[in-house]
Amino acid sequence: MSTSKANHDIEEGLAFQPKFDASGLVTCVATDAATGDVLMVAHMNEEALRKTIASGEAWYFSRSRKALWRKGETSGQTQRVVEMRLDCDQDAVWIRVEQQGAACHTGRRSCFYRKIEAGEGGARLSFVDADRLFDPAGVYRT
Amino acid sequence: MSTSKANHDIEEGLAFQPKFDASGLVTCVATDAATGDVLMVAHMNEEALRKTIASGEAWYFSRSRKALWRKGETSGQTQRVVEMRLDCDQDAVWIRVEQQGAACHTGRRSCFYRKIEAGEGGARLSFVDADRLFDPAGVYRT
Repeated sequence: MSTSKANHDIEEGLAFQPKFDASGLVTCVATDAATGDVLMVAHMNEEALRKTIASGEAWYFSRSRKALWRKGETSGQTQRVVEMRLDCDQDAVWIRVEQQGAACHTGRRSCFYRKIEAGEGGARLSFVDADRLFDPAGVYRT
Repeated sequence: MSTSKANHDIEEGLAFQPKFDASGLVTCVATDAATGDVLMVAHMNEEALRKTIASGEAWYFSRSRKALWRKGETSGQTQRVVEMRLDCDQDAVWIRVEQQGAACHTGRRSCFYRKIEAGEGGARLSFVDADRLFDPAGVYRT
């Protein structure tokens, strides 16, 4: 099969053939189904993808812990998948979710609680929507 | 500096210190500022990030072409950045944009024009919001 034929199948076909990177992962963006806010960006391996599709709950693969992980299994902050989409080249997934509580391990609703702005001598951050919904010290015990 | 002190600075600080991966990239999610839909997932290197912040127009780094790229420079489908955010571990960027026309090189508004659904014998895709706003053959000439 020529490259252009293969590309055409990936972009225009209805066969699910996710393109995993060298580490066996695709990128996943989770947005809040109610507000459209991006809650988090994480990764899924083949098993996380399969379990998410089958269960309607978000599963991820942690690159730092090298482990499959059901979102909320420690914190209780689960994600119910409302809709799941795939991008043109099949290497990124977008899930619209009903987020229980906070998506971020720091206790915030979203991981994106800081704004980037141009400033004198370089970019600066400022907090936005940064209230904590839970105290991480009380949730994640070592 | 201990790991936990460094982590605390990255997560709770206001210094912009993006964490680039081994290829020198961060992941960037662009959403439609009006609807909250995810338009595309792409990558930025240090220069793309700097130019985006400075200009208010989205710049990316193409992994396949290994080149810096201003969104819309070929197609005219530019992205004006309304807000730019950074995630907890500073390795992902979320931009809310005013998208001129279509974000996807296939001519669709969003790259995520297919839904994933569980089916007998495996997941299946179906088209959703898949109308083309332009004909890619007329825009990208080789």
